[in-house]
Amino acid sequence: MTLSMQEQVLALFLGQDEEYVSGELMSQRLGISRTAVWKQIKKLEALGYEFEAVTKLGYRLKYTPDSLETLDISSKLQQHRLGHEVHVYAEVSSTQEVAKELAEKGAREGTVVLAEQQTKGRGRLGRAWHSPYGKGLYMSVILRPTTPLHLAPQLTLITAVALSSAVRKLTGLPIGIKWPNDLLFEGKKISGIILESTAEDNMLKYVIAGIGIAVNLIEQDYETELLEKATSLRISAGKSFAREKLLCLFLDEWALLLDMYEQDGFKSIIPLWEAQSVSIGKKVQLTTPLDTFVATPIKLTETGALLVKLDDGSERTIFSAQMGEVN
Amino acid sequence: MTLSMQEQVLALFLGQDEEYVSGELMSQRLGISRTAVWKQIKKLEALGYEFEAVTKLGYRLKYTPDSLETLDISSKLQQHRLGHEVHVYAEVSSTQEVAKELAEKGAREGTVVLAEQQTKGRGRLGRAWHSPYGKGLYMSVILRPTTPLHLAPQLTLITAVALSSAVRKLTGLPIGIKWPNDLLFEGKKISGIILESTAEDNMLKYVIAGIGIAVNLIEQDYETELLEKATSLRISAGKSFAREKLLCLFLDEWALLLDMYEQDGFKSIIPLWEAQSVSIGKKVQLTTPLDTFVATPIKLTETGALLVKLDDGSERTIFSAQMGEVN
Repeated sequence: MTLSMQEQVLALFLGQDEEYVSGELMSQRLGISRTAVWKQIKKLEALGYEFEAVTKLGYRLKYTPDSLETLDISSKLQQHRLGHEVHVYAEVSSTQEVAKELAEKGAREGTVVLAEQQTKGRGRLGRAWHSPYGKGLYMSVILRPTTPLHLAPQLTLITAVALSSAVRKLTGLPIGIKWPNDLLFEGKKISGIILESTAEDNMLKYVIAGIGIAVNLIEQDYETELLEKATSLRISAGKSFAREKLLCLFLDEWALLLDMYEQDGFKSIIPLWEAQSVSIGKKVQLTTPLDTFVATPIKLTETGALLVKLDDGSERTIFSAQMGEVN
Repeated sequence: MTLSMQEQVLALFLGQDEEYVSGELMSQRLGISRTAVWKQIKKLEALGYEFEAVTKLGYRLKYTPDSLETLDISSKLQQHRLGHEVHVYAEVSSTQEVAKELAEKGAREGTVVLAEQQTKGRGRLGRAWHSPYGKGLYMSVILRPTTPLHLAPQLTLITAVALSSAVRKLTGLPIGIKWPNDLLFEGKKISGIILESTAEDNMLKYVIAGIGIAVNLIEQDYETELLEKATSLRISAGKSFAREKLLCLFLDEWALLLDMYEQDGFKSIIPLWEAQSVSIGKKVQLTTPLDTFVATPIKLTETGALLVKLDDGSERTIFSAQMGEVN
């Protein structure tokens, strides 16, 4: 077996127990220049490996990313609904696009598209979604609910509850849900959820749920401004997590909730969402397609909208809005 | 200018004032065999031309289809919202697919895709839609409503009202709307509407309205079984209609209703739909994704659902169902 130069570099760090390996040594062993060694280190960093470089001592391998390439979760899942067909890519423009193509071709419910990196990752409202290689969980999942179109907002809320519950189980962090589906830790965003629905008249044909979770990103992976509003599980908990484990926890939790929802209706989901929400009872600014106003969210309605109370005591039902801090 | 053989054949009929032209004469004039003449006639028939063939007399040109190729409606429209960008195709697999691609690329609201023929025309629930060349109006229109997802069913009903009004204006026929959006004349279907919605979380991104109207089809254009359930404007009214005129009437009516809807809400549409509906007050069988039951539609609700009364006096709100005759 011939090892690539990258693999040969990595091999030099194996069994070093986080000891330093000098550039000089690597250069000699591999028969390449010091500059070539440095280039290999940079390439590995782009794949999620983290090194500490100290003058005279050399490089220390601090962090090895877990790989999704060899992912095999089917036997680990507790249910048969989600995650039994998984497509893993090193890089895609957007997992949403790939999943949409698969859905159009008839892929079954629960089909998961994962990528180590997205070149055109999309967040809500067309915003770009930051997705460095190997450290986040970027996925799109095909759902084929037998739900009338007007109840699609309920699926958004169910997805948020499932993801929040899974992250809590994995990390022990007290995650909060910001309406409708952002997950926050101490006010900073750790994940994004987007549900793209395709309907024919009044029935949903399929829904592509896009989920991005900042699992093992470190502060250096973010632009400085972003760090004020975003964080990762690793930064929040002070340790890294196996992405495969989070994936299984999430899919199992989600499948459970979807089953519950189909059997008992959305009323069974409301208390779960409200219990984890940080939006209820806190005055916020809401921007709808029509206007901007200040109100206090009171509860979810039975259809999955947000009931808010305005300062004059009147109530309003919100279906879609941007929620921001009160100025 | 060189005329094609098809054009040369047609030229022989011009100025003949529906007189017969013998195959013999055509064969001599064009310098082709009688069989070749017959083949040209068949080709013209496939393009919507209708001939009467009488032994010894020859062929008589009975009907010349209007052409969409030279369509130029922009100056004829009474509004600026719909129909100012029109893409006309002789043949496409499905105008819905073409319009969807245009919408994904950012085409503006009101963009119209027209085709003389669809090889994979689609009706509701994936059914094939019969679309012979040159005689129907097969179109897909891009809408970009600022409507929350759960109100998409209202757009379906608005489209039906607009189309029904336009057909009434053009033909004088007392068209009826079968819930939610089939247009009927004397119980037979003359058009099909399908709205495919794409949403991001709770907001519609775009809607592709697919509209098929059997304008100038004659009985020979239908399979026998289909004639029991379907008819055309030409069969119903006993004369043919200019498709361009119908297109303009429909787009103008629709734009007017969409403006009204955005200003005054769905309550302004309800009486218009109900006035043209043949579904209200008539006992029917409804098949939802969950069950099949018999009920009498009473009215539209404010969200655009159908309120029905069951035999036991209870009421039910229907969002999506197949409506059929009571057995």
